[in-house]
Amino acid sequence: MKIKDFGEFNIIEYISNTLSKDKVQTSLSNSLDIQIGVGDDTAAWQTQPGLQLATTDTMVDQIHFILNTSNLIDIGWKSIATNLSDIASMGGTPTTALITLGLPGEMKITDLKSLYHGIIECASTYNTKIIGGDIVKSPILFITVAVYGVCQNPTMQRSLLKENDLIGITGFTGLSKAGLELSKPKNELKNLTPNNSQMFYNAHFRPKPKIKEGKILKEIGAICAMDISDGLFSDLNKMLTASQIGAVINQSSVPIHPEISKVFPNSDFEMATNGGEDYEILFGISSNKLDKVKSLLPESHIIGKACSGEAGVIELIADDKTYKLNRFNGWDHFRQ
Amino acid sequence: MKIKDFGEFNIIEYISNTLSKDKVQTSLSNSLDIQIGVGDDTAAWQTQPGLQLATTDTMVDQIHFILNTSNLIDIGWKSIATNLSDIASMGGTPTTALITLGLPGEMKITDLKSLYHGIIECASTYNTKIIGGDIVKSPILFITVAVYGVCQNPTMQRSLLKENDLIGITGFTGLSKAGLELSKPKNELKNLTPNNSQMFYNAHFRPKPKIKEGKILKEIGAICAMDISDGLFSDLNKMLTASQIGAVINQSSVPIHPEISKVFPNSDFEMATNGGEDYEILFGISSNKLDKVKSLLPESHIIGKACSGEAGVIELIADDKTYKLNRFNGWDHFRQ
Repeated sequence: MKIKDFGEFNIIEYISNTLSKDKVQTSLSNSLDIQIGVGDDTAAWQTQPGLQLATTDTMVDQIHFILNTSNLIDIGWKSIATNLSDIASMGGTPTTALITLGLPGEMKITDLKSLYHGIIECASTYNTKIIGGDIVKSPILFITVAVYGVCQNPTMQRSLLKENDLIGITGFTGLSKAGLELSKPKNELKNLTPNNSQMFYNAHFRPKPKIKEGKILKEIGAICAMDISDGLFSDLNKMLTASQIGAVINQSSVPIHPEISKVFPNSDFEMATNGGEDYEILFGISSNKLDKVKSLLPESHIIGKACSGEAGVIELIADDKTYKLNRFNGWDHFRQ
Repeated sequence: MKIKDFGEFNIIEYISNTLSKDKVQTSLSNSLDIQIGVGDDTAAWQTQPGLQLATTDTMVDQIHFILNTSNLIDIGWKSIATNLSDIASMGGTPTTALITLGLPGEMKITDLKSLYHGIIECASTYNTKIIGGDIVKSPILFITVAVYGVCQNPTMQRSLLKENDLIGITGFTGLSKAGLELSKPKNELKNLTPNNSQMFYNAHFRPKPKIKEGKILKEIGAICAMDISDGLFSDLNKMLTASQIGAVINQSSVPIHPEISKVFPNSDFEMATNGGEDYEILFGISSNKLDKVKSLLPESHIIGKACSGEAGVIELIADDKTYKLNRFNGWDHFRQ
């Protein structure tokens, strides 16, 4: 059956029923003090003194995924996960979400169910309550998610990097790009194994928002962080520009996952620094907190240091030379 | 110039600059205690004990408007206004908004600027601060807006209609449908004047969310309300279904705007009851509060009464007969 045969009210009823059957979704109503969930003109929840966080991200067919060749459960998962990553990068705790679906009349109901399955799976995994949204007809499928969270004041911010702060990342970058490469039919890759294939696939299609790591960073005393969505160097450039500061990065300090080097030996550094959709956290921290970072975030890596150079400029030291990297268009979707 | 030549970063810079030049947008930062606005991974604002409201609505090219023939300033206005109407129907005060734009590469920058002009104009008119959003490339233009608001506990809700409550609307319905009819080139209409044309046009393309009226209703003591977006009878059916109650409506009590009767004499009742996109508030209220409704909401009309009939059923009394109206698909966009 197709969306156009099923009708708006049946879709809303399906979603409401599915949400009410999910144990985590149901249990969150009380713990989050939800007054009004799905079904009225607005959602409503009780607030306490503190900071409310809000973010939104969108995925569009033909731009961010291909409907006919994608696993819709994965698309659903990722549509929430990218938003949760934004909350994580502030050191916050996600609480609630609004889900907007733009649905083509020709879309199969089974695909809609898979999509929503992935949405609920990710939301429930990270204790995020779906409280409402919108369903509209659209010539192409799109998913817009808005996620809310809470945080004790102050949040971490991308604009607060200070001179001599160490610059770190919570884990390897480049794995998502490797997963994307795998999904392209043209590639004949050496050294692929079931294990590294799965790892690459999961990094791209099932990203895990670093909520725990964001909270640890905030507790340790980090004040500067952002999530890596456009690529490590592109996002570092944004952090440096926002903080009006420069940075020195040693090429040898940028961690390259050994499996990426095995499968993509000629582009491993490029993938790690310019891959995108990593959803690791990029952070700055005082050097006197390095021991805590090492013990509490053992998978993190320090890649360089903020310096009083030209604002926004990355001085990359490689092969005893210094390269000044001063502009990264990264993932500028609009330019052709 | 087109979107694809302008690039994502220039778009974001244009939006940030435009927001920072708008006096209302700037002044709201302090009064709403915004900690982080446009530019970081999430927005953040300080909360106090109370209720946080959240709603979202989407407009899609070819479904809700036609890009090539629309006034983009109006589309921008309406994309916010429909959300504000949801906040109004709870008795809330809007505070902040996230704006997501799905932009085709071929769209003109002048159209984007018109769209954003309308968005800011409406947001600023109703003291709503734009705090972030997302910009994505898309094969078709769409606008998803999420609006937040605050409210003292409890909100009005659509499910709280009680037996013998009077059922009212805050103003005439059908004017928006008249505006939509006007925009269709095929129509040759009699009795059109510049004044009624403008009124019909504004009702459809420049709806005014009934925020003041929603607050008055809540202060008077109404506990049941929703906004009329799908059509008066369709939305009344939803209110009755949510409240598990019936209603008796006298045809003669449903107000028909005299200008609609002049221009559309054969379909005026149909337009008033099934037009859609009215963005008036439908409410239920105890009869002992009727005097307050009349004095504080002089443009409102009482159209009937809740009764212990079959849940969801409207008993329409017309020409000394009673018609049982028990199902309204209203604006079901998906069925063909």
